[in-house]
Amino acid sequence: MQRHLEQDLDGLKSAIIRMASSVEQAVGDSLVGLTEPRPERVQSVFQLEDRINAFEVEIDDLVVDLLALRQPVAADLRMILAALKINNDLERIGDHAVNIAESARSLRRDPPPSFPHELRRMAEAAQTMLRDAVDGFVHNAPSLCGEVLRHDDVVDDLNRTVVRHLADLIRRDPEGLEPALQLMRVSRNLERIADHATNIAEEVIFMADARVVKHGAEHDMRGEGSEPRIALPRKK
Amino acid sequence: MQRHLEQDLDGLKSAIIRMASSVEQAVGDSLVGLTEPRPERVQSVFQLEDRINAFEVEIDDLVVDLLALRQPVAADLRMILAALKINNDLERIGDHAVNIAESARSLRRDPPPSFPHELRRMAEAAQTMLRDAVDGFVHNAPSLCGEVLRHDDVVDDLNRTVVRHLADLIRRDPEGLEPALQLMRVSRNLERIADHATNIAEEVIFMADARVVKHGAEHDMRGEGSEPRIALPRKK
Repeated sequence: MQRHLEQDLDGLKSAIIRMASSVEQAVGDSLVGLTEPRPERVQSVFQLEDRINAFEVEIDDLVVDLLALRQPVAADLRMILAALKINNDLERIGDHAVNIAESARSLRRDPPPSFPHELRRMAEAAQTMLRDAVDGFVHNAPSLCGEVLRHDDVVDDLNRTVVRHLADLIRRDPEGLEPALQLMRVSRNLERIADHATNIAEEVIFMADARVVKHGAEHDMRGEGSEPRIALPRKK
Repeated sequence: MQRHLEQDLDGLKSAIIRMASSVEQAVGDSLVGLTEPRPERVQSVFQLEDRINAFEVEIDDLVVDLLALRQPVAADLRMILAALKINNDLERIGDHAVNIAESARSLRRDPPPSFPHELRRMAEAAQTMLRDAVDGFVHNAPSLCGEVLRHDDVVDDLNRTVVRHLADLIRRDPEGLEPALQLMRVSRNLERIADHATNIAEEVIFMADARVVKHGAEHDMRGEGSEPRIALPRKK
Protein backbone atom coordinates (compact mmCIF):
# COMPACT_ATOMS: atom_id res chain seq x y z
CA MET A 1 0.00 0.00 0.00
CA GLN A 2 2.76 2.48 0.94
CA ARG A 3 4.70 1.59 -2.23
CA HIS A 4 1.55 2.12 -4.33
CA LEU A 5 0.96 5.47 -2.65
CA GLU A 6 4.51 6.61 -3.41
CA GLN A 7 4.18 5.58 -7.05
CA ASP A 8 0.86 7.42 -7.28
CA LEU A 9 2.33 10.56 -5.71
CA ASP A 10 5.21 10.47 -8.22
CA GLY A 11 2.67 10.07 -11.03
CA LEU A 12 0.71 13.06 -9.75
CA LYS A 13 3.87 15.18 -9.60
CA SER A 14 4.83 14.19 -13.15
CA ALA A 15 1.38 15.12 -14.41
CA ILE A 16 1.66 18.56 -12.78
CA ILE A 17 5.10 19.03 -14.38
CA ARG A 18 3.76 18.18 -17.84
CA MET A 19 0.77 20.46 -17.38
CA ALA A 20 2.94 23.33 -16.08
CA SER A 21 5.22 22.94 -19.08
CA SER A 22 2.25 23.38 -21.48
CA VAL A 23 1.00 26.36 -19.48
CA GLU A 24 4.43 28.06 -19.50
CA GLN A 25 4.62 27.49 -23.24
CA ALA A 26 1.14 28.99 -23.76
CA VAL A 27 2.05 32.09 -21.77
CA GLY A 28 5.36 32.45 -23.65
CA ASP A 29 3.71 32.00 -27.06
CA SER A 30 0.96 34.53 -26.27
CA LEU A 31 3.61 37.11 -25.32
CA VAL A 32 5.72 36.47 -28.44
CA GLY A 33 2.53 36.90 -30.50
CA LEU A 34 2.00 40.23 -28.82
CA THR A 35 5.32 41.79 -29.80
CA GLU A 36 6.32 39.95 -33.00
CA PRO A 37 4.47 39.18 -36.25
CA ARG A 38 4.30 35.45 -35.45
CA PRO A 39 0.71 34.28 -36.01
CA GLU A 40 1.77 30.62 -35.64
CA ARG A 41 2.75 31.30 -32.03
CA VAL A 42 -0.66 32.87 -31.35
CA GLN A 43 -2.31 29.85 -33.00
CA SER A 44 -0.24 27.52 -30.79
CA VAL A 45 -1.86 29.03 -27.66
CA PHE A 46 -5.32 27.83 -28.76
CA GLN A 47 -3.99 24.32 -29.41
CA LEU A 48 -2.23 24.26 -26.04
CA GLU A 49 -5.50 25.29 -24.38
CA ASP A 50 -7.10 21.96 -25.38
CA ARG A 51 -4.13 20.07 -24.03
CA ILE A 52 -4.19 22.05 -20.76
CA ASN A 53 -7.92 21.37 -20.29
CA ALA A 54 -7.31 17.65 -20.83
CA PHE A 55 -4.46 17.73 -18.27
CA GLU A 56 -6.76 19.39 -15.75
CA VAL A 57 -9.35 16.61 -16.09
CA GLU A 58 -6.63 13.95 -15.85
CA ILE A 59 -5.11 15.45 -12.70
CA ASP A 60 -8.49 15.92 -11.00
CA ASP A 61 -9.20 12.23 -11.70
CA LEU A 62 -5.79 11.22 -10.33
CA VAL A 63 -6.44 13.15 -7.13
CA VAL A 64 -9.87 11.62 -6.58
CA ASP A 65 -8.51 8.11 -7.18
CA LEU A 66 -5.64 8.76 -4.79
CA LEU A 67 -7.95 10.02 -2.05
CA ALA A 68 -10.45 7.19 -2.51
CA LEU A 69 -8.00 4.31 -2.92
CA ARG A 70 -4.99 5.26 -0.78
CA GLN A 71 -6.66 7.36 1.93
CA PRO A 72 -3.52 9.41 2.59
CA VAL A 73 -3.01 11.51 5.71
CA ALA A 74 -0.66 14.25 6.98
CA ALA A 75 2.08 15.38 4.55
CA ASP A 76 0.85 13.14 1.72
CA LEU A 77 -2.71 14.49 1.99
CA ARG A 78 -1.28 18.02 2.09
CA MET A 79 0.73 17.41 -1.08
CA ILE A 80 -2.28 15.93 -2.91
CA LEU A 81 -4.58 18.82 -1.98
CA ALA A 82 -1.85 21.30 -2.97
CA ALA A 83 -1.63 19.55 -6.36
CA LEU A 84 -5.43 19.85 -6.73
CA LYS A 85 -5.27 23.60 -6.13
CA ILE A 86 -2.15 24.10 -8.28
CA ASN A 87 -3.92 22.21 -11.07
CA ASN A 88 -6.75 24.72 -10.91
CA ASP A 89 -4.36 27.70 -10.87
CA LEU A 90 -2.43 26.36 -13.87
CA GLU A 91 -5.63 25.88 -15.86
CA ARG A 92 -6.67 29.46 -15.14
CA ILE A 93 -3.23 30.75 -16.18
CA GLY A 94 -3.86 28.91 -19.47
CA ASP A 95 -7.15 30.86 -19.81
CA HIS A 96 -5.29 34.14 -19.30
CA ALA A 97 -2.76 33.13 -21.99
CA VAL A 98 -5.73 32.60 -24.35
CA ASN A 99 -7.04 36.09 -23.50
CA ILE A 100 -3.61 37.58 -24.26
CA ALA A 101 -3.46 35.64 -27.55
CA GLU A 102 -6.88 37.07 -28.53
CA SER A 103 -5.63 40.57 -27.75
CA ALA A 104 -2.44 39.86 -29.73
CA ARG A 105 -4.60 39.05 -32.78
CA SER A 106 -6.65 42.21 -32.37
CA LEU A 107 -3.50 44.34 -31.89
CA ARG A 108 -2.00 42.87 -35.05
CA ARG A 109 -5.02 44.18 -37.03
CA ASP A 110 -5.17 47.50 -35.15
CA PRO A 111 -1.71 48.23 -33.70
CA PRO A 112 -1.06 50.74 -30.88
CA PRO A 113 1.21 53.76 -31.48
CA SER A 114 3.59 52.37 -28.87
CA PHE A 115 3.97 49.46 -26.51
CA PRO A 116 4.28 50.49 -22.82
CA HIS A 117 7.68 49.34 -21.58
CA GLU A 118 6.15 48.50 -18.18
CA LEU A 119 4.13 45.82 -19.98
CA ARG A 120 7.39 44.13 -21.01
CA ARG A 121 8.58 44.22 -17.40
CA MET A 122 5.26 42.74 -16.26
CA ALA A 123 5.54 39.97 -18.85
CA GLU A 124 9.06 39.08 -17.68
CA ALA A 125 8.09 39.21 -14.00
CA ALA A 126 4.95 37.08 -14.48
CA GLN A 127 6.90 34.41 -16.39
CA THR A 128 9.67 34.30 -13.77
CA MET A 129 7.11 34.05 -10.96
CA LEU A 130 5.35 31.16 -12.69
CA ARG A 131 8.62 29.29 -13.33
CA ASP A 132 9.86 29.77 -9.75
CA ALA A 133 6.52 28.73 -8.21
CA VAL A 134 6.39 25.55 -10.33
CA ASP A 135 10.07 24.79 -9.57
CA GLY A 136 9.23 25.29 -5.90
CA PHE A 137 6.55 22.60 -6.18
CA VAL A 138 8.66 20.18 -8.22
CA HIS A 139 11.70 20.41 -5.93
CA ASN A 140 9.66 20.90 -2.75
CA ALA A 141 11.66 24.10 -2.31
CA PRO A 142 9.64 26.79 -0.52
CA SER A 143 12.78 28.98 -0.55
CA LEU A 144 12.09 29.62 -4.26
CA CYS A 145 8.62 30.86 -3.37
CA GLY A 146 9.39 33.78 -1.05
CA GLU A 147 10.65 35.76 -4.02
CA VAL A 148 7.41 35.03 -5.91
CA LEU A 149 5.35 36.51 -3.08
CA ARG A 150 7.51 39.64 -3.05
CA HIS A 151 7.21 40.10 -6.83
CA ASP A 152 3.40 40.12 -6.70
CA ASP A 153 3.25 43.68 -5.35
CA VAL A 154 5.68 44.86 -8.04
CA VAL A 155 3.42 43.47 -10.77
CA ASP A 156 0.33 45.08 -9.18
CA ASP A 157 2.12 48.46 -9.20
CA LEU A 158 3.21 48.01 -12.82
CA ASN A 159 -0.39 47.19 -13.80
CA ARG A 160 -1.63 50.43 -12.25
CA THR A 161 1.11 52.38 -14.05
CA VAL A 162 0.24 50.80 -17.40
CA VAL A 163 -3.49 51.53 -16.99
CA ARG A 164 -2.77 55.17 -16.07
CA HIS A 165 -0.40 55.55 -19.03
CA LEU A 166 -2.95 54.07 -21.46
CA ALA A 167 -5.76 56.25 -20.07
CA ASP A 168 -3.59 59.31 -20.82
CA LEU A 169 -3.02 58.03 -24.35
CA ILE A 170 -6.79 57.67 -24.90
CA ARG A 171 -7.43 61.20 -23.61
CA ARG A 172 -4.84 62.60 -26.02
CA ASP A 173 -6.00 60.48 -28.96
CA PRO A 174 -9.50 58.93 -28.63
CA GLU A 175 -8.99 57.33 -32.07
CA GLY A 176 -6.52 54.94 -30.42
CA LEU A 177 -9.18 53.63 -28.03
CA GLU A 178 -9.39 50.03 -29.29
CA PRO A 179 -5.67 49.16 -29.12
CA ALA A 180 -5.39 50.93 -25.76
CA LEU A 181 -8.28 48.86 -24.35
CA GLN A 182 -6.61 45.69 -25.68
CA LEU A 183 -3.32 46.63 -24.00
CA MET A 184 -5.20 47.27 -20.73
CA ARG A 185 -6.67 43.78 -21.11
CA VAL A 186 -3.18 42.30 -21.61
CA SER A 187 -1.94 44.13 -18.53
CA ARG A 188 -4.86 42.86 -16.46
CA ASN A 189 -4.29 39.29 -17.64
CA LEU A 190 -0.57 39.47 -16.78
CA GLU A 191 -1.51 40.73 -13.35
CA ARG A 192 -3.87 37.75 -12.93
CA ILE A 193 -1.14 35.32 -14.06
CA ALA A 194 1.11 36.79 -11.37
CA ASP A 195 -1.73 36.34 -8.83
CA HIS A 196 -2.08 32.66 -9.73
CA ALA A 197 1.71 32.16 -9.56
CA THR A 198 1.49 33.70 -6.09
CA ASN A 199 -1.28 31.25 -5.15
CA ILE A 200 0.93 28.36 -6.31
CA ALA A 201 3.85 29.72 -4.27
CA GLU A 202 1.63 29.96 -1.18
CA GLU A 203 0.50 26.39 -1.74
CA VAL A 204 4.11 25.17 -1.99
CA ILE A 205 5.07 27.00 1.20
CA PHE A 206 2.07 25.48 2.93
CA MET A 207 2.76 22.02 1.58
CA ALA A 208 6.35 22.13 2.81
CA ASP A 209 5.83 23.94 6.07
CA ALA A 210 2.14 23.48 6.94
CA ARG A 211 2.04 27.25 7.31
CA VAL A 212 -0.88 29.35 6.12
CA VAL A 213 0.44 32.44 4.33
CA LYS A 214 -2.92 33.51 2.98
CA HIS A 215 -5.20 36.48 3.63
CA GLY A 216 -2.29 38.14 5.44
CA ALA A 217 -2.31 35.39 8.07
CA GLU A 218 0.84 33.47 8.83
CA HIS A 219 0.56 30.84 11.50
CA ASP A 220 1.74 27.29 12.04
CA MET A 221 -0.93 24.70 11.30
CA ARG A 222 1.01 21.54 12.19
CA GLY A 223 -0.97 19.76 14.84
CA GLU A 224 0.72 18.12 17.79
CA GLY A 225 -2.32 16.11 18.89
CA SER A 226 -3.07 12.46 18.32
CA GLU A 227 -5.32 13.19 15.35
CA PRO A 228 -4.00 14.70 12.13
CA ARG A 229 -4.66 18.43 12.11
CA ILE A 230 -3.71 19.95 8.82
CA ALA A 231 -4.98 22.69 6.61
CA LEU A 232 -5.09 23.55 2.96
CA PRO A 233 -3.22 26.26 1.19
CA ARG A 234 -5.62 29.07 0.35
CA LYS A 235 -6.24 31.22 -2.67
CA LYS A 236 -6.37 34.98 -2.65
CA MET B 1 -17.85 6.32 12.33
CA GLN B 2 -20.74 6.60 9.83
CA ARG B 3 -22.72 8.72 12.28
CA HIS B 4 -19.70 10.99 12.77
CA LEU B 5 -19.27 11.29 9.03
CA GLU B 6 -22.90 12.30 8.55
CA GLN B 7 -22.64 14.92 11.28
CA ASP B 8 -19.46 16.26 9.69
CA LEU B 9 -21.08 16.41 6.25
CA ASP B 10 -24.03 18.34 7.71
CA GLY B 11 -21.57 20.71 9.38
CA LEU B 12 -19.76 21.25 6.10
CA LYS B 13 -23.03 22.00 4.30
CA SER B 14 -24.08 24.48 7.01
CA ALA B 15 -20.73 26.26 6.71
CA ILE B 16 -21.17 26.59 2.93
CA ILE B 17 -24.70 27.97 3.46
CA ARG B 18 -23.42 30.59 5.92
CA MET B 19 -20.57 31.56 3.61
CA ALA B 20 -22.86 31.76 0.56
CA SER B 21 -25.23 33.99 2.50
CA SER B 22 -22.40 36.46 3.23
CA VAL B 23 -21.25 36.34 -0.38
CA GLU B 24 -24.77 36.99 -1.72
CA GLN B 25 -25.08 39.90 0.68
CA ALA B 26 -21.72 41.34 -0.47
CA VAL B 27 -22.74 41.14 -4.12
CA GLY B 28 -26.14 42.73 -3.35
CA ASP B 29 -24.60 45.54 -1.29
CA SER B 30 -21.99 46.32 -3.95
CA LEU B 31 -24.75 46.64 -6.57
CA VAL B 32 -26.93 48.86 -4.36
CA GLY B 33 -23.86 51.04 -3.81
CA LEU B 34 -23.48 51.32 -7.54
CA THR B 35 -26.92 52.74 -8.28
CA GLU B 36 -27.91 54.48 -5.04
CA PRO B 37 -26.14 57.00 -2.77
CA ARG B 38 -25.74 54.43 0.02
CA PRO B 39 -22.10 54.55 1.19
CA GLU B 40 -22.93 52.34 4.18
CA ARG B 41 -23.81 49.50 1.79
CA VAL B 42 -20.46 49.93 -0.01
CA GLN B 43 -18.69 49.91 3.37
CA SER B 44 -20.52 46.71 4.33
CA VAL B 45 -18.88 44.89 1.37
CA PHE B 46 -15.40 45.46 2.84
CA GLN B 47 -16.54 44.17 6.23
CA LEU B 48 -18.16 41.12 4.64
CA GLU B 49 -14.89 40.41 2.79
CA ASP B 50 -13.13 39.70 6.10
CA ARG B 51 -15.92 37.38 7.16
CA ILE B 52 -15.85 35.58 3.79
CA ASN B 53 -12.08 35.07 4.00
CA ALA B 54 -12.48 33.62 7.49
CA PHE B 55 -15.21 31.26 6.23
CA GLU B 56 -12.93 30.08 3.43
CA VAL B 57 -10.19 29.14 5.88
CA GLU B 58 -12.70 27.43 8.17
CA ILE B 59 -14.22 25.37 5.34
CA ASP B 60 -10.81 24.36 3.95
CA ASP B 61 -9.90 23.15 7.45
CA LEU B 62 -13.18 21.24 7.77
CA VAL B 63 -12.54 19.51 4.43
CA VAL B 64 -9.01 18.47 5.34
CA ASP B 65 -10.14 17.14 8.72
CA LEU B 66 -12.95 15.23 7.06
CA LEU B 67 -10.63 13.65 4.50
CA ALA B 68 -7.98 12.78 7.07
CA LEU B 69 -10.25 11.50 9.85
CA ARG B 70 -13.24 9.95 8.05
CA GLN B 71 -11.60 8.79 4.79
CA PRO B 72 -14.84 9.05 2.82
CA VAL B 73 -15.37 7.42 -0.57
CA ALA B 74 -17.87 7.55 -3.48
CA ALA B 75 -20.75 10.04 -3.11
CA ASP B 76 -19.47 11.42 0.21
CA LEU B 77 -16.01 12.10 -1.21
CA ARG B 78 -17.64 13.70 -4.24
CA MET B 79 -19.74 15.98 -2.04
CA ILE B 80 -16.70 17.00 0.05
CA LEU B 81 -14.57 17.83 -2.98
CA ALA B 82 -17.48 19.75 -4.53
CA ALA B 83 -17.71 21.76 -1.29
CA LEU B 84 -13.96 22.48 -1.49
CA LYS B 85 -14.34 23.86 -5.02
CA ILE B 86 -17.56 25.76 -4.25
CA ASN B 87 -15.77 27.32 -1.26
CA ASN B 88 -13.09 28.62 -3.60
CA ASP B 89 -15.66 29.94 -6.11
CA LEU B 90 -17.62 31.72 -3.37
CA GLU B 91 -14.49 33.40 -2.06
CA ARG B 92 -13.65 34.66 -5.54
CA ILE B 93 -17.19 35.99 -5.99
CA GLY B 94 -16.57 37.93 -2.77
CA ASP B 95 -13.42 39.42 -4.38
CA HIS B 96 -15.47 40.53 -7.39
CA ALA B 97 -18.03 42.16 -5.07
CA VAL B 98 -15.13 44.12 -3.52
CA ASN B 99 -14.01 45.23 -6.99
CA ILE B 100 -17.55 46.43 -7.77
CA ALA B 101 -17.69 48.26 -4.42
CA GLU B 102 -14.41 50.04 -5.28
CA SER B 103 -15.85 51.06 -8.64
CA ALA B 104 -19.06 52.21 -6.90
CA ARG B 105 -16.97 54.54 -4.72
CA SER B 106 -15.11 55.92 -7.72
CA LEU B 107 -18.37 56.39 -9.68
CA ARG B 108 -19.89 58.27 -6.75
CA ARG B 109 -17.05 60.83 -6.98
CA ASP B 110 -17.02 60.90 -10.80
CA PRO B 111 -20.47 59.81 -12.05
CA PRO B 112 -21.16 58.63 -15.61
CA PRO B 113 -23.64 60.52 -17.82
CA SER B 114 -25.85 57.41 -17.86
CA PHE B 115 -25.94 53.87 -16.55
CA PRO B 116 -26.18 51.22 -19.33
CA HIS B 117 -29.44 49.33 -18.84
CA GLU B 118 -27.73 46.08 -19.91
CA LEU B 119 -25.63 46.42 -16.76
CA ARG B 120 -28.80 46.23 -14.67
CA ARG B 121 -29.85 43.11 -16.54
CA MET B 122 -26.41 41.57 -15.97
CA ALA B 123 -26.62 42.38 -12.26
CA GLU B 124 -30.02 40.69 -11.97
CA ALA B 125 -28.93 37.66 -13.99
CA ALA B 126 -25.68 37.19 -12.01
CA GLN B 127 -27.52 37.37 -8.68
CA THR B 128 -30.19 34.90 -9.83
CA MET B 129 -27.51 32.50 -11.12
CA LEU B 130 -25.63 32.65 -7.83
CA ARG B 131 -28.79 32.04 -5.78
CA ASP B 132 -29.93 29.12 -7.96
CA ALA B 133 -26.49 27.47 -7.97
CA VAL B 134 -26.23 27.71 -4.17
CA ASP B 135 -29.82 26.43 -3.75
CA GLY B 136 -28.87 23.58 -6.08
CA PHE B 137 -26.04 22.62 -3.72
CA VAL B 138 -28.07 23.02 -0.52
CA HIS B 139 -31.04 20.97 -1.78
CA ASN B 140 -28.90 18.62 -3.89
CA ALA B 141 -31.09 19.73 -6.81
CA PRO B 142 -29.19 19.68 -10.11
CA SER B 143 -32.46 20.61 -11.86
CA LEU B 144 -31.95 24.16 -10.53
CA CYS B 145 -28.53 24.27 -12.18
CA GLY B 146 -29.38 23.69 -15.84
CA GLU B 147 -30.88 27.18 -16.00
CA VAL B 148 -27.68 28.63 -14.52
CA LEU B 149 -25.61 27.07 -17.31
CA ARG B 150 -27.95 28.51 -19.94
CA HIS B 151 -27.82 32.01 -18.43
CA ASP B 152 -24.02 32.15 -18.63
CA ASP B 153 -24.03 32.81 -22.40
CA VAL B 154 -26.64 35.56 -21.97
CA VAL B 155 -24.41 37.35 -19.46
CA ASP B 156 -21.37 36.99 -21.75
CA ASP B 157 -23.36 38.62 -24.58
CA LEU B 158 -24.57 41.42 -22.31
CA ASN B 159 -20.96 42.09 -21.25
CA ARG B 160 -19.86 42.48 -24.87
CA THR B 161 -22.79 44.83 -25.53
CA VAL B 162 -21.94 46.96 -22.47
CA VAL B 163 -18.26 47.23 -23.46
CA ARG B 164 -19.17 48.25 -27.02
CA HIS B 165 -21.68 50.81 -25.76
CA LEU B 166 -19.13 52.32 -23.33
CA ALA B 167 -16.41 52.42 -26.02
CA ASP B 168 -18.81 54.47 -28.19
CA LEU B 169 -19.41 56.82 -25.26
CA ILE B 170 -15.65 57.35 -24.82
CA ARG B 171 -15.21 58.08 -28.52
CA ARG B 172 -17.98 60.69 -28.40
CA ASP B 173 -16.79 62.22 -25.13
CA PRO B 174 -13.19 61.38 -24.10
CA GLU B 175 -13.73 63.47 -20.94
CA GLY B 176 -15.97 60.68 -19.64
CA LEU B 177 -13.13 58.14 -19.85
CA GLU B 178 -12.75 57.42 -16.12
CA PRO B 179 -16.40 56.58 -15.32
CA ALA B 180 -16.67 54.57 -18.55
CA LEU B 181 -13.60 52.50 -17.58
CA GLN B 182 -15.12 51.93 -14.13
CA LEU B 183 -18.40 50.76 -15.67
CA MET B 184 -16.43 48.39 -17.93
CA ARG B 185 -14.78 47.03 -14.80
CA VAL B 186 -18.17 46.50 -13.16
CA SER B 187 -19.42 44.70 -16.26
CA ARG B 188 -16.33 42.45 -16.32
CA ASN B 189 -16.73 41.62 -12.62
CA LEU B 190 -20.42 40.74 -13.09
CA GLU B 191 -19.42 38.49 -15.95
CA ARG B 192 -16.87 36.76 -13.68
CA ILE B 193 -19.48 36.34 -10.92
CA ALA B 194 -21.71 34.62 -13.49
CA ASP B 195 -18.75 32.38 -14.47
CA HIS B 196 -18.21 31.32 -10.86
CA ALA B 197 -21.95 30.69 -10.40
CA THR B 198 -21.69 28.49 -13.50
CA ASN B 199 -18.75 26.62 -11.95
CA ILE B 200 -20.81 26.01 -8.81
CA ALA B 201 -23.74 24.75 -10.91
CA GLU B 202 -21.40 22.35 -12.75
CA GLU B 203 -20.08 21.09 -9.44
CA VAL B 204 -23.61 20.49 -8.14
CA ILE B 205 -24.57 18.59 -11.30
CA PHE B 206 -21.42 16.52 -10.97
CA MET B 207 -21.93 15.89 -7.28
CA ALA B 208 -25.48 14.66 -7.88
CA ASP B 209 -24.94 12.78 -11.11
CA ALA B 210 -21.19 12.04 -11.30
CA ARG B 211 -21.33 13.64 -14.74
CA VAL B 212 -18.60 15.91 -16.04
CA VAL B 213 -20.16 18.95 -17.74
CA LYS B 214 -16.92 20.87 -18.07
CA HIS B 215 -14.80 21.95 -21.05
CA GLY B 216 -17.73 21.01 -23.29
CA ALA B 217 -17.42 17.36 -22.24
CA GLU B 218 -20.40 15.51 -20.91
CA HIS B 219 -19.89 11.91 -19.97
CA ASP B 220 -20.82 9.58 -17.16
CA MET B 221 -18.04 9.06 -14.64
CA ARG B 222 -19.74 6.55 -12.33
CA GLY B 223 -17.58 3.47 -12.20
CA GLU B 224 -19.05 0.00 -12.21
CA GLY B 225 -15.85 -1.76 -11.09
CA SER B 226 -14.94 -3.00 -7.63
CA GLU B 227 -12.88 0.10 -6.86
CA PRO B 228 -14.42 3.56 -6.57
CA ARG B 229 -13.98 5.45 -9.81
CA ILE B 230 -15.15 9.00 -9.44
CA ALA B 231 -14.11 12.36 -10.74
CA LEU B 232 -14.17 15.93 -9.61
CA PRO B 233 -16.25 18.72 -10.99
CA ARG B 234 -14.09 21.04 -13.04
CA LYS B 235 -13.68 24.78 -13.37
CA LYS B 236 -13.78 26.68 -16.61
